Amino acid sequence: MFSGIYTPIVTPFNEREEIDYCKMKHNLDRWSETNLDGIVVLGSNGEFVYLTMPEKLELVEFVINNFTADKKIIVGTGCESTRETIELNYIVADLGADAVLVLPPSYFKGSMNDDVLYRHYVDIAEECPVPVMIYNMPKNTGINLPSSLVAKLSQHPNIVGIKDTSGNITQLAELVRDTEDGFSVFAGNAGYLLPALAVGAKGATLALANILPNECCEVVSLFREGKIASAGELQQKLLEPNNLVTAKLGVPALKAALDMLGYQGGIPRRPLRPLSDDDRETVKNALIRFGVLK
Amino acid sequence: MFSGIYTPIVTPFNEREEIDYCKMKHNLDRWSETNLDGIVVLGSNGEFVYLTMPEKLELVEFVINNFTADKKIIVGTGCESTRETIELNYIVADLGADAVLVLPPSYFKGSMNDDVLYRHYVDIAEECPVPVMIYNMPKNTGINLPSSLVAKLSQHPNIVGIKDTSGNITQLAELVRDTEDGFSVFAGNAGYLLPALAVGAKGATLALANILPNECCEVVSLFREGKIASAGELQQKLLEPNNLVTAKLGVPALKAALDMLGYQGGIPRRPLRPLSDDDRETVKNALIRFGVLK
Amino acid sequence: MFSGIYTPIVTPFNEREEIDYCKMKHNLDRWSETNLDGIVVLGSNGEFVYLTMPEKLELVEFVINNFTADKKIIVGTGCESTRETIELNYIVADLGADAVLVLPPSYFKGSMNDDVLYRHYVDIAEECPVPVMIYNMPKNTGINLPSSLVAKLSQHPNIVGIKDTSGNITQLAELVRDTEDGFSVFAGNAGYLLPALAVGAKGATLALANILPNECCEVVSLFREGKIASAGELQQKLLEPNNLVTAKLGVPALKAALDMLGYQGGIPRRPLRPLSDDDRETVKNALIRFGVLK
Amino acid sequence: MFSGIYTPIVTPFNEREEIDYCKMKHNLDRWSETNLDGIVVLGSNGEFVYLTMPEKLELVEFVINNFTADKKIIVGTGCESTRETIELNYIVADLGADAVLVLPPSYFKGSMNDDVLYRHYVDIAEECPVPVMIYNMPKNTGINLPSSLVAKLSQHPNIVGIKDTSGNITQLAELVRDTEDGFSVFAGNAGYLLPALAVGAKGATLALANILPNECCEVVSLFREGKIASAGELQQKLLEPNNLVTAKLGVPALKAALDMLGYQGGIPRRPLRPLSDDDRETVKNALIRFGVLK
Repeated sequence: MFSGIYTPIVTPFNEREEIDYCKMKHNLDRWSETNLDGIVVLGSNGEFVYLTMPEKLELVEFVINNFTADKKIIVGTGCESTRETIELNYIVADLGADAVLVLPPSYFKGSMNDDVLYRHYVDIAEECPVPVMIYNMPKNTGINLPSSLVAKLSQHPNIVGIKDTSGNITQLAELVRDTEDGFSVFAGNAGYLLPALAVGAKGATLALANILPNECCEVVSLFREGKIASAGELQQKLLEPNNLVTAKLGVPALKAALDMLGYQGGIPRRPLRPLSDDDRETVKNALIRFGVLK
Repeated sequence: MFSGIYTPIVTPFNEREEIDYCKMKHNLDRWSETNLDGIVVLGSNGEFVYLTMPEKLELVEFVINNFTADKKIIVGTGCESTRETIELNYIVADLGADAVLVLPPSYFKGSMNDDVLYRHYVDIAEECPVPVMIYNMPKNTGINLPSSLVAKLSQHPNIVGIKDTSGNITQLAELVRDTEDGFSVFAGNAGYLLPALAVGAKGATLALANILPNECCEVVSLFREGKIASAGELQQKLLEPNNLVTAKLGVPALKAALDMLGYQGGIPRRPLRPLSDDDRETVKNALIRFGVLK
Repeated sequence: MFSGIYTPIVTPFNEREEIDYCKMKHNLDRWSETNLDGIVVLGSNGEFVYLTMPEKLELVEFVINNFTADKKIIVGTGCESTRETIELNYIVADLGADAVLVLPPSYFKGSMNDDVLYRHYVDIAEECPVPVMIYNMPKNTGINLPSSLVAKLSQHPNIVGIKDTSGNITQLAELVRDTEDGFSVFAGNAGYLLPALAVGAKGATLALANILPNECCEVVSLFREGKIASAGELQQKLLEPNNLVTAKLGVPALKAALDMLGYQGGIPRRPLRPLSDDDRETVKNALIRFGVLK
Repeated sequence: MFSGIYTPIVTPFNEREEIDYCKMKHNLDRWSETNLDGIVVLGSNGEFVYLTMPEKLELVEFVINNFTADKKIIVGTGCESTRETIELNYIVADLGADAVLVLPPSYFKGSMNDDVLYRHYVDIAEECPVPVMIYNMPKNTGINLPSSLVAKLSQHPNIVGIKDTSGNITQLAELVRDTEDGFSVFAGNAGYLLPALAVGAKGATLALANILPNECCEVVSLFREGKIASAGELQQKLLEPNNLVTAKLGVPALKAALDMLGYQGGIPRRPLRPLSDDDRETVKNALIRFGVLK
C-alpha cells in the first residue's frame, strides 16, 4: 500500500537541453536523505511530455539505479494509446519500478467517455506487472475522472490508488468514501494537503516536495499526531512557495528554486523558458520569507 | 464578528407559487430551536432570483419578525446594479437585518474586471448601515472573486466576511491568510466544511443546514474540541445528503427533504419543478441511510 | 415574420444615473430615419439588468410612444422566474410591443436542463399575447440553448424566432435547417452577420446597429443582390468597430461611440463605468478609420 | 500558396491494431482521383497521437511514395517540445513533405502564454526546410491561438498559413484581415466551410473530405462562381454527415463511413473503439439521406 509524501522529480537539462545526469544524481542523493516516502519519475514536473521514448527509458533506468532502495519509485507511463502505455509498463516494471502512474488519454476529449476510459484502464491493469495508480490532472488534460469511475476502477486488484490534482476537495472526499479499502487516495498539490488528510487521503504526490520535502512530510506527521493547529499553521506557510512553483510560475520556478536551495534544477526544455529575473526574485523572496533561504 | 453555522433558508411556495408564510413560520420555529448561529434570507436556496422586489421586502420583514432574536439574520441583497443594491441595503437594515450578503453583478461578465468589482463593493460598503459580507458563487454567476481582490476589500471596515462557494479549498486558505484579522471566511457548501475549518474558516453558510442544522454544527464543535477523527467521520457522512440537495438535485431536493423531516418545504417556483418520484426516492433513501428518517 | 436588421437600443443615463428621456427621444428620432427594420428595447445593450421593474415599464411605454410606427419594436422580457416573465409579457403587449425577446433563466445553471427550459418557454408562449423570440446568449448567461431544443420549441405557433449570440455558426446553420418554416433565425452579433446570412439567417439583432445602422443593413442588401464580394468587404470593415463596442469594451464603448456620432449615449449605470480616455481614443480612431468620423 | 480542399487522412489499423498499408494504398488511390488539392498525413483524424515515432516516419514515407504527385502532402509534426518538432520537420521535409502542420504544445496550459507560443513557432519556422502551417485546435488542446498572435507569426516568411478549427467565425475573419498577404487561412471543419469562404478563407482541411471529397470541393467551386444560393444548399446538406464524423461520433464514425463508401477505414486504435451497431446505423442512414449510399 502506498502512503505518505512522494515528489514528482524534475528532469534537469543542460544548456543544450539535454538531460543532465550529473545534476540528477546530485538531486537523487539529496532526496535520499529526506523523509520522503518515494519519488515519481516521468511525472508532469519531470517534463515527461518533452522527452522522447529513448530518453524516457534511459532516465528511468538511471533513476532506479541511483536512488536509495529505501524509498519507492513510481514511474509515469500514461501515453495516448492503450497499447503504447501497456508496452511502456512492461519495460519500466522490468527496470524495477514499484508502480506506474497513468494519466488518461485526452486528445480526443469528445470521445473519452467513462466507458472508454474504464476499458482503457482495465486493459492496462490486466497486463501491468506492477500496481497501477491513476493520475487525475484535469488542468492539463482537460478531462476529469469522476469519483464514480474511479470507484469502479478501484475494484480491479491491480489498480491501487489515485493521485487527484483536480483541487476539488469534495471529490477527493468522495474518492476516499467510494473506493475499495486499501486503495490509496493521494492529493496532487500541496495547496490542499492538510484538507486532503482531514478527509482521509493516505498521502500526496507534491511538486513542492522537490524543494521542501521534509516540510511536506511534517504536515503529515503533525496531522497523524493530532496536532491539527500546528499542521494548519504549516499548511498555511506552504501556500506561498507552493503557488509559485505550481499554478503561478510552474516548472521553470520549481527548477530555479531547486538551484537556490542546493539542488540542481537546470533549465527547462523549450517551449518552457528559464524564469525571468523578476520572477526569480519573487521566488527568492518567498523562500527567504519561508525561512529556508537567507 | 460572524462565525459558526448559518443556513440560507428556503422560501416555501404553495400550489399557486405564492409564498406560504404558514410554512415559513413553521420552519422558523424549528430552526430557532437548533444550534444554528443564524440564517440567511434571500440566499440562493431562498430562490431570491424568482422573487419580485415587493415579495423580497415582505419576506424579509416577516422573517425578522418571526425568528428568534437569539440568532443572527443576514439578508441577501446583491442586485446587478450598484444603486439598486445600495437601496435594498438601506431597507433591509431598517427592517432589522444584522448584515447583508452581496453577490457580485455578473451579467456583463466581460466587463466585470477586478477594478469594476472593487469599486462596486466599496460603493456599497460606504453606504450600508450594516456590515457587508461578500458572496462568491462562481458556479451560478460565472465569476470568481480572486483572493487578491477580496483581501483588498477586507481592508474596508464595513466589509466583514465572505461566503466562498467556489469549492477551491486552496483559495479559501489564501482568503484566511490574506484578509484582515477579524474578517470572517465562511465555507459555502457542506462538501468541504471540515477542510475549510482545517485551513482557518470561521464558519459556513450551508444549504444542508436547512435539514441537518445540528449535524453541521457538530462538525464545528468536534473540530474545535480537537476531535479530528470524529469530525472526519461526520464530514464523510454528510457528503451524500449534501450532494443531493445541492449540486446533484438542487433546491427541489432540499425542499422535498424538508418535507420528509418535519419541516415544510413546499414546492419550488417555475422554471424549477418539484422533484420526480424517482429522485424523491433517492433523497428518501439517503436520509434513511443517514439515520434521520425511517 | 421577422427579418432584416434590428438594434438593441441603449438606455442613456444622466449624471445621477437616471434614465435620460431627452437623449432617448433624440436617438429614437435618428433611428427612425435609418433603414433599420426595428429595435429591441430592454435588450442586453439596454442595460435591462440594471433597471428596476417600474423603470422598465416606463421606458417601454416611452419608446413605443416615441418611435416611428413604420418599424417594429421588440421588448426584452426574460426574467428568472416563469411567472414574472409571463406577467411582464402581458404588460408590454398591452403597451404595444410587436414581440418579446426572452432570455432563458440561468441562475441555477445545474437545474436548467433541456426539459426545464422547454417547459419554461412553452408556459410563456402559451400565455403571451404577442409572438415570442428566444434569446440565446451563452456568454452572459452561461447557458447555451442547443439547436435540438430550439427546433422543438419552433413547433409552437407562438414561438417565432431566435436571436443566437453564441457565435457558433454551425449551430446557427443547424437552427436554420431544423426549425419550422417561417421561424426567424437571427444572428446576435455583427462579427458574423454575412456568414449567418450565407447559411440562411433571416436577419440580425446587432449592438453595432446602434451606431452603424445603415451599414449593417447594407450587408443584408448586398447579400440579397448576390454581391457577395462587396458584402464580404463591408463585413470585414465592420469587424473592428463591432469588436470595440461588444466583446472588447462593451456598453460603455457603445455609448461613447453614440456620443461621437451625433447620437446621445449618456453614461452607463454602475457597476459599469464610463470609458477611460485611452479607450475613448481607441474607439474614436476606429470610427475615423471606418470613415464615419473625422 | 496553399488553397482549396485538403483532407486529414485516416490511418487504417488491422485487427491487431497495426497500420494496414494495403488499406492505406487503396484509399490513397481513391483520393488521387478526386478533386482534392491535397492531403494531411498525421493529422488529428490520422490518430497521430496513437502512433509511435517509428510508425510516424514509416507512414509518412509510405504515403509520399504512394500518393499522386499532382496533389500536395502536408504532414502534421507538432510535438510538445520545440526540439522534437524541429527534428521531425527535418525528417519529413527530407522524405518529401510539401509543408508541415504544427499543433501548439498544450500540456502545460498555464505556461503557454502568447510569448512562449510565439517563440516556439519562430524557433520551428527558422529551422524548417519546408513551409509551416499553424494548427489551431482548441477543442482538443485546450489552447486557442488568438488572431493577434497569428498575425504576428504570419510576418515570418516561412509561416504560410493556419488551419483554424476553433469554429469561431469572427476570429477566422480577423485572421484573414490581420495576417500578411499570401497567408492562407483555412477552415478546420466542414460545419462552417461556406461561412469561412465568405469572410476570405482560401481553403479548408476537412475530416469530412475523407468521405465526401468532391462535395467539399464543390462548395468552393460554387462559391468562386458566385453561385451563393447553391453553395448554401450544399453547405446545409453537408452538416449532418459532417457532425457525425467529427463532433458527435469522431474518428470511429469516419472510419466506419469510409468502409461504407468503398474506402477502407479499418478499426481505430484503443482507447478509441469501433462504432457500436446503433451508431453505425445512424451513420449509414445519414449517408443514405445524403444520397451517396443506397
